[in-house]
Formats: sequence, structure tokens, C-alpha cells
Amino acid sequence: MATDLSLRISNDELAARRSALLERLQPEDAAAVVLFGPTAIFWLTGFSFIPTERPLAVVLTRDHVLALVPSLEREHVRAAAEVDAVVSYEEYPGQEPPLNLLSRALVDDLGVAGRALAVDADGYPPRYGYRGPRLTELLPNRQVNCAALIEDMRLLKSSQELALLRESSRWADHTHRHLQELVRAGGNENEVAVQASLQGSLEMVGALGPGFDPKAWAMLPTTAGFRSQIGANAAFPHAINRNLIMRGGDVLVTGASALVWGYRCELERTMFVGPPEPEQRRWFQLMVGAQEAALEAMKPGRPCADVDWAVRHYFEREGITETWRHHVGHGLGLEVHEAPFLDVGDVRVMEPGMVFSVEPGIYVPGLGGFRHSDTVAITDDGIELMTRYPRDLDSLICAV
Amino acid sequence: MATDLSLRISNDELAARRSALLERLQPEDAAAVVLFGPTAIFWLTGFSFIPTERPLAVVLTRDHVLALVPSLEREHVRAAAEVDAVVSYEEYPGQEPPLNLLSRALVDDLGVAGRALAVDADGYPPRYGYRGPRLTELLPNRQVNCAALIEDMRLLKSSQELALLRESSRWADHTHRHLQELVRAGGNENEVAVQASLQGSLEMVGALGPGFDPKAWAMLPTTAGFRSQIGANAAFPHAINRNLIMRGGDVLVTGASALVWGYRCELERTMFVGPPEPEQRRWFQLMVGAQEAALEAMKPGRPCADVDWAVRHYFEREGITETWRHHVGHGLGLEVHEAPFLDVGDVRVMEPGMVFSVEPGIYVPGLGGFRHSDTVAITDDGIELMTRYPRDLDSLICAV
Repeated sequence: MATDLSLRISNDELAARRSALLERLQPEDAAAVVLFGPTAIFWLTGFSFIPTERPLAVVLTRDHVLALVPSLEREHVRAAAEVDAVVSYEEYPGQEPPLNLLSRALVDDLGVAGRALAVDADGYPPRYGYRGPRLTELLPNRQVNCAALIEDMRLLKSSQELALLRESSRWADHTHRHLQELVRAGGNENEVAVQASLQGSLEMVGALGPGFDPKAWAMLPTTAGFRSQIGANAAFPHAINRNLIMRGGDVLVTGASALVWGYRCELERTMFVGPPEPEQRRWFQLMVGAQEAALEAMKPGRPCADVDWAVRHYFEREGITETWRHHVGHGLGLEVHEAPFLDVGDVRVMEPGMVFSVEPGIYVPGLGGFRHSDTVAITDDGIELMTRYPRDLDSLICAV
Repeated sequence: MATDLSLRISNDELAARRSALLERLQPEDAAAVVLFGPTAIFWLTGFSFIPTERPLAVVLTRDHVLALVPSLEREHVRAAAEVDAVVSYEEYPGQEPPLNLLSRALVDDLGVAGRALAVDADGYPPRYGYRGPRLTELLPNRQVNCAALIEDMRLLKSSQELALLRESSRWADHTHRHLQELVRAGGNENEVAVQASLQGSLEMVGALGPGFDPKAWAMLPTTAGFRSQIGANAAFPHAINRNLIMRGGDVLVTGASALVWGYRCELERTMFVGPPEPEQRRWFQLMVGAQEAALEAMKPGRPCADVDWAVRHYFEREGITETWRHHVGHGLGLEVHEAPFLDVGDVRVMEPGMVFSVEPGIYVPGLGGFRHSDTVAITDDGIELMTRYPRDLDSLICAV
């Protein structure tokens, strides 16, 4: 096969994923696979859509892909996805439950009567006011849930997926550089974040050319910002945006990413608005030590849990357990967080092709938070750091 | 009660919602109400959080609000929400399923053993790789699902909610004005959208002062953009962003909103990059006629379905049914779309306090899409147009 340099998952790989899924199901369990989840549908067909109260489903058989869509997605699904047949309904709620059409297509067009179905859910999930029948209310067929199987298949990234995550990391680094350069005492966090994100996005779109498709509904393909993790407010790991002003001496916890054909890395840095105080320096260096402890524990063949234990033991040794708030990291790929988890409760073994955020954090109420996050792939003999932004303190003191 | 001019839902109203929910449940059905849905939790407690794989739940009883949170939300929930007790677990997946703690708190702290529970779901839904036990696997208590009841209670907006939606509409109008002024032939859609959104957001934050809280994770409290509904691509009602360049003569379909304490309006306009061609003018005027037909059909006491029928008959009369793709509109409030629907399948009756998007659209493959969307409240004797941006063609031709 010729090397494909385009920034997308090839149709061959999408077809291979579908075949692999069907092969991993017992034939007697899967006259057809019925999918309602947007991530599973995108991973298996490349169809990216805005999920709403209007039910949407994709059905896979050995030789056929059928989509159920509202009429407002009819042209879009034909243009954007590899589907063999489209069944469209007028609207939701409409005069008939849309899942009735799905049920009829399964029986009349795909001949599944009396045979088992693999499903990722028993009907379209409630969302934005959707209410409708479960699939089992319409079809008496035995069901096998394959949501966990699909999630397991997504754990190991292919070389095409790794290439997209590497490209995503490259642009997160790039946009984060703009963010750091725009930081100033008295600056409004959103003004800085939006200007950096716009600048990075225009450069990204210009460099990648017309073939580039973020495959997402986001306004900008790459963003960097603070989400109000500024000064004392940085002590809330999942702070909600409050549009804060940065002051000299504030600690900042940033976040940056880029969407490349649906895939997104994670990059976060602890920075300072001008030179930090000794206490801030101390917490910063402790945080870097925690991240180093995590990176050293990441090796193929070891359980995910070991990485989290390494960091927990580090916190204990340093006597800073009261500043601990969360595990080391989570899988990365199509979703903001994915399995597996670098967590004492995740006994899955790290394998080449897994990609993680590595982001142990230290939180000191009243003073702030300290966290770097990097996107790290497990390789045959160790790890690949995909995000490359500097991690040392001197590099992260913003000129003011 | 003194008039409260602050842009938020008062704690009194949040408490009244909780009481009303408990009163509408049979006492024997609700020793406690267990909530996992972020929208229901926000509507009943004002707690806004970033949903992840880490389960989060709120339990209501007649005199008590208890929250189950991961440790990274412990300080946040205490600072941001009216809760009486917080049960926090270290992490997910962790060494024990987090729902075990919930189950123990329900039995040991709230004494629900053997009594029925009202729930909005039988456990935390799968999200970002979460897997965990259903609540019924941990507690044998009889369950009554109250998700639909809470959704029904959210249909009628209070005067505080209407005030927030009115303020949201005011800022959507404002930011959309910037968007229109920045449109130019050769302009990059995201550059125009982001600059308008940033400008509008800084003005909004400046005008509303430090008490303003969007209660959302968004980077900007008000945004306006195109989502690639530009030229022929505007024929896809739910187009995905492609970072397009606007050309002279293009039709544009915009979208704008603003987040005010979690509430958001919807404003969309069909605009032109310079003077439109006669065919574009014709479709524009037909679209305006469809929206007028919808607005005329909106009256308290009439079924929602009537509004959609009025527009469908209009399409038939004009002989343009092949350009129809979706119903007239949906409810607005906390979610991007909400029930009820202005749809032939929704027999609910329009009542004062309901708020809808009114957005019939015309889609002409190869040429483009034509759609205005306004936020419209049902009043005692008619309707209130909350978004006020001009709707006539002359006002929507952008200077180039």
C-alpha cells in the first residue's frame, strides 16, 4: 500500500475496523450491529454529526452499512460517510417514532427477523428532550451489548491514529506558544485565549491546506486557554470559566489541543505571570517530580495502576498527600477523556498503541494549582512524548 | 420580596423547585430523589460542573441535599452549590466503585432502606469510558423514574428564567451585529466569527460586571458564527465547521447565542455577502413568509403541532415542499435544544412561559440554505419576540 500522507483515517482502515468488530462477535450474536453512539459511529464509518434529540443510528452487516437519519442529515450523510443505504425520517417527534423505521429496515431490508442483534444501546439515548421506544419494545430479537467491546477495540491506536494524534500535538504546542507570548499582567484570560486560538487556528488551516478536516463542530480547530485556572482559582482542577484578569505573580494552569480528523491530544502547562515566589517554585518542582515519576513508570507490559501508585507513593514520600485530587491520567483519542485510566483501579496492561494524558496535579487551596499534562504513547520499548512544549520552570515564566 | 436584579436564579427559587419536585412525587415513591443528569442537577441546585467519566450524583430529600463527587470537585461543589453534605470518593475507577459510597450514604445517612427511590437514571450513564454498577445492583429499593417529570417541570419558565433568556437574547443580538459588520468577501469564516465573539464577550463581561456568571465551561459567554453554512454548503442544515472563505454573492446562515447563568437563547439570520441574485431574494422572501406563518400560529392554548402544520401548509401552498428538511423549532432554556417541539408530532399545548426557537428553513441543494431563528416566549395573550435582530432582506445584505 502506498504511503498515505493525508490527515485522515483511510476508508480501508474504517472498513477493516468494521470487519474486525464483526469477527470478534459470535456469528450467532450479530445478524447486524446497531449503533446509536456518536463516537462508535464515527470510529466505524467516519460520519461526524451534531447529536440532537433527532435519533440517528448506523447498522452494520458483513457487507452493508445502513444509516437511519433525520431528513436534515440526509444529504450530509451521503456526502460525508461510506454508507450503502440511507433510511431517512421526516422529523422528531414526527407522526411516528423514528425507531419504527429502523425496526422495519432491520426486518425487511436486512432480514434479521428472529436473529440476535449486537447493539451499543437499547435504543437512542435520551438527549435534548428525546423520548422514544427501546429497540426491544419494537423487535423481540435477542440483544448482545457490544459497547464495551467497541471501547476495548479503540484502546490501541493504529499508525494512522497515532499520526493524527502526533499532528494534533504539534498544533497544540504551536498554539500554546502564542498563548504564552500573549500573557500579561492585567490581561483578560479570554482575550488572551481567543487571540492565541485564532492565530494558531488560522496558521494551522493555512499550513494543512484544503484537505484538512477537523471533523468537529468546534469554531476553531486548535485552542489554548486557562478555563479560569488563574491564581487561587487554579486550586479548582475543573474550574468553570469566569473570565478572570491575570495579575502579576499569578500561577496559571493552561490547556491546549487541536482537532485533526476527530482526534485530539491534551497539553497543559503550569506557568507564572512574572517570576514566582519561593513557595510557588517549590510546588512547581514537586509537580514536575510527580510527572517524572509517572513517566518513569510507563512501560509496555506493566499495569496502568502501577503509574498511579508510583505517583501516590511520591506524594506520600514528599508528605504532600493532602494536595492530591486526582489520578495520573486517562486515555486519549476521539474523546476528551477515554479509557484506559492511569489509576490504581485500572488493572489493564499498558500496550504499544495506547495513548494517555500524564497529568498528576498538586492543589493548594488559597494559593493555586500545579499541573502539566502531556500526551504520551506507549511504544514497543517505552514511551513517545507527543506533546513537546517545554516543561521546565524557567521556560514557563511569562514576560510581563 | 424585593426585586432582585442580579442575573441568576435565586436560592429561593432553586429551593422552591426542589420542593415542587418532591411534592409532585407520591410520598411512597420518594424516600429520596437521586439525580445523575447534569442538567437536572443544575436546574435543581445551581451546581454546574464538567461531566466526565467520574460519577457525580445529587440526592434530595425533604430537608437535605447531598452530593457525591470525586475529590477533584470537593471544594468546587462546596463553593458553588447549596448542598448540606458532600460525600467524596478519591477517583474513578479507583479501588471501589464510587456508587458504593452513594449506596451507603443513602442507607446509612438518609435511612432509605426498604423505601422507594425516585431516580433520573439507574446509575451514572456511560461517558468517557465510565463503567460501573447500576443502582439497582447495589440497592434493592423499588425505583420510580422521574426524568420525564423533571423535564416536564422545566417546560414552563419562571420570571427569573425569562429574564435570563431576555438578557441572553440582548447579547446575542449585540454580538451578531459585530458579526455582520465584520463580514467581507474573501473573509475567513472563523476569523470573522471569533473576532465578533471576542468583541461581544468582552463588552458583555464589562457591562454586566463582576457579578455576572455564565455558569458554563465555554471560553466565551457570547458567540456568533457560521458553522460553514456558507454558499452552497448552507444547504446542509447541520453542517460541520470547515473553515470556509466567504465569496461575494454567498448566502450565509449564522448562529449566535449568549450564556447567562446557564440559560441560552438562539438567534440565526440569513445574510448575503453583497447584493443577492433574484433567485436568492426569492428564496429569502419565501423563508420570511414561512417564519411569519409560524409566528402567527403561536398562541397560548393551541397545540405545538399547529405551528408546524401552519408552516407545512405554507410550503405546500408555495409548492416548495422538496426544500423542507425540519420542523419549526424546539424549546429553549438550559440546553441547546429542549422539549417541547414545534412539530406535528408534539400535541402539548403552548402555555405562557414556554420559550421556543422559531426557525423554519428552506434548503436548495447547490444554491444554499435560508433560515432565520428567533427566540420566542409564549405570553398570556400572544408571544414575546426575545431576539430583536432585523429580519428584513435590506438589513441583512452585508457591505463588501
